[in-house]
Amino acid sequence: MRIRDLPTPALIIDATALAQNVATMSAALPGARLRPHVKAHKCTALAAVQAAAGHRSFTCATPREVLGMAANGLGHDLLLANESVDPTRLRAMAAAQDSARITIAVDSVATIDAAAAAGIHDVLIDVEVGLPRCGCAPTDAGRLADHARAAGLVVRGVMGYEGHLMMVSDREAKRAKVAGAMDLLLAAHADVGGDIVSAGGTGTFDLHDRVNEVQAGSYALMDTQYGTLGLPFTQACFVVGTVVSSNGRHAVADVGLKALGMDHGNPAAMTLIEDAGTDGIAGGTSTDVWFCSDEHVTISSVDGQTRVDARVLIIPAHIDPTVAMHEVAWLVRDGEVIDRWPIDLRGW
Amino acid sequence: MRIRDLPTPALIIDATALAQNVATMSAALPGARLRPHVKAHKCTALAAVQAAAGHRSFTCATPREVLGMAANGLGHDLLLANESVDPTRLRAMAAAQDSARITIAVDSVATIDAAAAAGIHDVLIDVEVGLPRCGCAPTDAGRLADHARAAGLVVRGVMGYEGHLMMVSDREAKRAKVAGAMDLLLAAHADVGGDIVSAGGTGTFDLHDRVNEVQAGSYALMDTQYGTLGLPFTQACFVVGTVVSSNGRHAVADVGLKALGMDHGNPAAMTLIEDAGTDGIAGGTSTDVWFCSDEHVTISSVDGQTRVDARVLIIPAHIDPTVAMHEVAWLVRDGEVIDRWPIDLRGW
Repeated sequence: MRIRDLPTPALIIDATALAQNVATMSAALPGARLRPHVKAHKCTALAAVQAAAGHRSFTCATPREVLGMAANGLGHDLLLANESVDPTRLRAMAAAQDSARITIAVDSVATIDAAAAAGIHDVLIDVEVGLPRCGCAPTDAGRLADHARAAGLVVRGVMGYEGHLMMVSDREAKRAKVAGAMDLLLAAHADVGGDIVSAGGTGTFDLHDRVNEVQAGSYALMDTQYGTLGLPFTQACFVVGTVVSSNGRHAVADVGLKALGMDHGNPAAMTLIEDAGTDGIAGGTSTDVWFCSDEHVTISSVDGQTRVDARVLIIPAHIDPTVAMHEVAWLVRDGEVIDRWPIDLRGW
Repeated sequence: MRIRDLPTPALIIDATALAQNVATMSAALPGARLRPHVKAHKCTALAAVQAAAGHRSFTCATPREVLGMAANGLGHDLLLANESVDPTRLRAMAAAQDSARITIAVDSVATIDAAAAAGIHDVLIDVEVGLPRCGCAPTDAGRLADHARAAGLVVRGVMGYEGHLMMVSDREAKRAKVAGAMDLLLAAHADVGGDIVSAGGTGTFDLHDRVNEVQAGSYALMDTQYGTLGLPFTQACFVVGTVVSSNGRHAVADVGLKALGMDHGNPAAMTLIEDAGTDGIAGGTSTDVWFCSDEHVTISSVDGQTRVDARVLIIPAHIDPTVAMHEVAWLVRDGEVIDRWPIDLRGW
């Protein structure tokens, strides 16, 4: 089966680009230095590729990701880098501790008490390092670690996600800002103790010589936003669409905003050079995206020639929510579909 | 079970508000004057409520919606208001014609020939009336109808979606613009013939005295964007979140951009007055949304008091893609969960 035989919209992953991205990251952050974030792909088959490259510890964003990874033999060391006070889900993760090591992020007395009540063994103190989201104040981390230990929990260390710095374009400014954020995290770690100091993402993966693991996820598949940063990773994931309507001015393909994460704005688009394999993916003709509707993307017709039934490649602006909208990803190499990977960690 | 017992993020539908919206629309556009668009809810249980209100003809955006409606006994008169050249899906819809009446939109020789080759019986000519998406030029509609009839297809009429006019805020300007778009559609209909002239949406539902059916969908559940228009419909759908992190400044709930359509920007948020039922939904305290992340929304803490484990109600900015991200909707009345409705028409 080739790309044009897939029912569209079809999420495809270029096996060659994926392998390159995984190899590049593994060279920079080998083994446990990288804790790949599965929220970017929600796919245990892809996580298995990362594990085969030496990364056996993973970051998760939802209980379903944790449980799905554990159920698929990828539970060597799973971090839920997120808070939960849901007793049912916490108990489900606690039950999975027999076969998996599961560590839960906590940032308050309430989240610590919920974890302890559910029978969770291991936690890590989540510290706010500048992004106004989860995480305790750095100066509060030691107190929370004491509370967790008093509740019988093992405190494995700290994490702090500097998500507000991912898209800083000036590299030296970014380096300085990341250093400032990590100053906060390391100060908290001094109060907390434990073996783990975890931070970072794809946009800062090479600026972390003071933490012992980086939580990057998007590097494996990439998107147009991270593509602006000059990172050493290439676009490995596309949504294939079929042109269903066309005139000399615009064409309409069946990839709409129900198949694309839209919080980073419109995707990019290019024609697919059919039967040209990887070069076809890299070498298509870019064309302007006018707008997305529920089930459609309107693009400029290429030289007025984009015909009905042609295939186009849509490049997601934000990879994480895009993947989460699809039931399956198709692995392709040289235009041939070589595997079907369920997006099996969707949902909550 | 009450709202706060639901695992979050939880898509909930307020049964009272839904019933009001359906009744209001049915009074304005009774029976076949409304062809409800199922793309807004992707839920056969909700479609059954619309059918019980007298609307037995439905609009669909994807083959899966058509097939799911037919399989659930809602196939009295299904219009795929979208083009397809997928032989497999067209054949699947053709096979469903034994038990359902299925009409496919076409706007080109290619889409007509694909429908005929697959064994589809009924088509309708899709006409572009100003929105640069699918639809033929109005002056081309007659030629395409002739081609379709020559191919053995029954041409039931025309449709033309004036989607570019939905959000025009000045009512008289909107009336004039819709009239101009319908001039184009009616001119095309004069060349095409057939019983159906189909157009419109929630934003123009009451401006269509010259077509015989309106394709509104969002009116049943609503969203913040349509909520700005002063329509006689109230918000009936929310995503319930649990606060998992909070400080005196901001709080973070577990409703992120993987649970919300983001193409219309951020959602709105309010606290949930627990155990207060419908009044609780309507009467919560609004609070500012700072930003959405994959699995989180950061909001202002209400008076610095929003505590971990509180529930918040997130009001989607765009209902269609929001619903499509959820596996199930929970029907609630007076705070009590009274039914579980699978979002069974997701996907393509």
